[in-house]
Amino acid sequence: MVRTRGNKKSLLKTAGTIGERKIIEMIQGHLDLMPNLAVSFGDDVSALSIGRGCLAVLKADMLVSKTDVPPGMTFWQAARKAVVMNISDFAAKGVKPMAMLVSLGLPKGMAAKDVVELAEGLNAGAREYGAYVIGGDTGEASDLVISVSLFGTARRNRLMLRSGAKPGDFLAVTGPFGNTAAGLRVLLSKLDVPEKVRDVLAKSVLLPHARLKEGLALSHSKAVSAAIDSSDGLAWSLHEIARASNVGLMIDRLPAASEAKIFAERTKIDLAELVFYGGEEYEILLTIKPDAWAAAEKAVARIGGQLLQIGKVTRGKRVVRESGGTKHTIEPRGYEHFKT
Amino acid sequence: MVRTRGNKKSLLKTAGTIGERKIIEMIQGHLDLMPNLAVSFGDDVSALSIGRGCLAVLKADMLVSKTDVPPGMTFWQAARKAVVMNISDFAAKGVKPMAMLVSLGLPKGMAAKDVVELAEGLNAGAREYGAYVIGGDTGEASDLVISVSLFGTARRNRLMLRSGAKPGDFLAVTGPFGNTAAGLRVLLSKLDVPEKVRDVLAKSVLLPHARLKEGLALSHSKAVSAAIDSSDGLAWSLHEIARASNVGLMIDRLPAASEAKIFAERTKIDLAELVFYGGEEYEILLTIKPDAWAAAEKAVARIGGQLLQIGKVTRGKRVVRESGGTKHTIEPRGYEHFKT
Repeated sequence: MVRTRGNKKSLLKTAGTIGERKIIEMIQGHLDLMPNLAVSFGDDVSALSIGRGCLAVLKADMLVSKTDVPPGMTFWQAARKAVVMNISDFAAKGVKPMAMLVSLGLPKGMAAKDVVELAEGLNAGAREYGAYVIGGDTGEASDLVISVSLFGTARRNRLMLRSGAKPGDFLAVTGPFGNTAAGLRVLLSKLDVPEKVRDVLAKSVLLPHARLKEGLALSHSKAVSAAIDSSDGLAWSLHEIARASNVGLMIDRLPAASEAKIFAERTKIDLAELVFYGGEEYEILLTIKPDAWAAAEKAVARIGGQLLQIGKVTRGKRVVRESGGTKHTIEPRGYEHFKT
Repeated sequence: MVRTRGNKKSLLKTAGTIGERKIIEMIQGHLDLMPNLAVSFGDDVSALSIGRGCLAVLKADMLVSKTDVPPGMTFWQAARKAVVMNISDFAAKGVKPMAMLVSLGLPKGMAAKDVVELAEGLNAGAREYGAYVIGGDTGEASDLVISVSLFGTARRNRLMLRSGAKPGDFLAVTGPFGNTAAGLRVLLSKLDVPEKVRDVLAKSVLLPHARLKEGLALSHSKAVSAAIDSSDGLAWSLHEIARASNVGLMIDRLPAASEAKIFAERTKIDLAELVFYGGEEYEILLTIKPDAWAAAEKAVARIGGQLLQIGKVTRGKRVVRESGGTKHTIEPRGYEHFKT
């Protein structure tokens, strides 16, 4: 039954040595593509037409305790994070989430009070972004597994895809980077960091926020040419925009969070490493038409958010950082299951 | 953060001692209910209005290798089964599935060729019922986890719910029962059963079929007053219809599959036990308005299916079986994770 479209040698490898992205590619190669699909694999969400220019927008993302729950994270926080992971993808496309289903895999020995905490965390996450949990199921599993699938509707012409960036567009983010990479290190080991900074860093990991208000305002402004969620890391997201839009990107301002800067100074860990290669950071990375920059900035300011310009879209395919007069290539590394 | 709406003592118990149904009840008690939800918890699917009398219909069901994959089942079959589990719920509501998302939890040591088999099984399952896999994600997990979420649209007045049965309605099923319960026993241990029978029984477990054509035809016929998928077992489904419709049920014909009969005779296992308490059987259990019986039968025959009348809807709340002149109560037992 197995059509081996892939390299035969690679079929002998295991999931652990192949890595998440290659696995997804392999799987996609064996699926029939739905005709007339509005948004398919390769963007943050999937979307299909349900008539009259209206799209059903769908997203599924699974949290597994083994790899996605750092030490110190409560069940409530883990459940809420599983929701935020999904909401963030809707935010990056400018889509309002309506309802979600949750499949829970629970270890047999899990206490009932912890199950209640999970339910409360799911509900809190959903309500925070105006959505509701409307169904799901549970079963026994070795790990705690929280599989969320999210549903919403959108006008076809309002969806912000990865593929529309044009040379000359401005490159921007909805907030600074680096805190979650630093925060994860803080949670994993004892490091000499001031308590106040440590708290902010830890909180960025334990209580992440999706930029839904920003995404909706930006979609409404019509100023955006391309957008992506940054949960696989800023570097990876930059490369995805470049790949999907067939452009290059030049970053001339490092969007580093102030706490990440203090952390980097204290620990001698490279700040750029924290900013570009962290992952599980839920900002939106966008490209904006130059003549619409003011409108975009205003739209985001109106809902209390910020838009940080970090560079420009260029011709070619390179993703580079310009600093101190020299250009460095930004490697296409990012957060990846099985490999990290 | 935890509002303890439940019994405080029960919060000290574990998932393994509480059982799946009680866990789902606990979780639901801590979720805000979406206003104006068309179909909520307590039916086979969830559904919300997306305007103009149209509903978005959603279902999520997770397969975990530990509990849902019997010995002898291939990865291809497991993936297909995960799809069929979800399709069956759409079938029972009369809803055409359009698209699905799949979140895969994969053990690190899983071979790439087995991942390809999973992809092929997912695709085969989806295409068999006219649907497509349009997105998903993967991550590392200790068990193989296949979390499917299914999407479709439906007219509000076409949905067959659990709640519409009326005294006097006929009770029917789309096929006979007992083969999967027997098949599971055949797969789990060596039993003295003729090879031909053994093959049919094993196949009923390894290659289950959802009654989608039947469900769509019946929804179209408008003859159905209530319907439910039978995957938790016939007895449990009977009790669910009775509970949701606030009626009683009387079964006067045992819908036993011929292979299950042979198996029961050979092994001295009670045939009624196999028929009522098997589970993972994907027939539709329906109640049909008496004056529409002929229309329903014709609609199902037209697509090559069958409709077996097994009893009647009664007043009261009892679910009983009449056989040999005496009435026996059918216990509300069924397949349940954590407990079985």
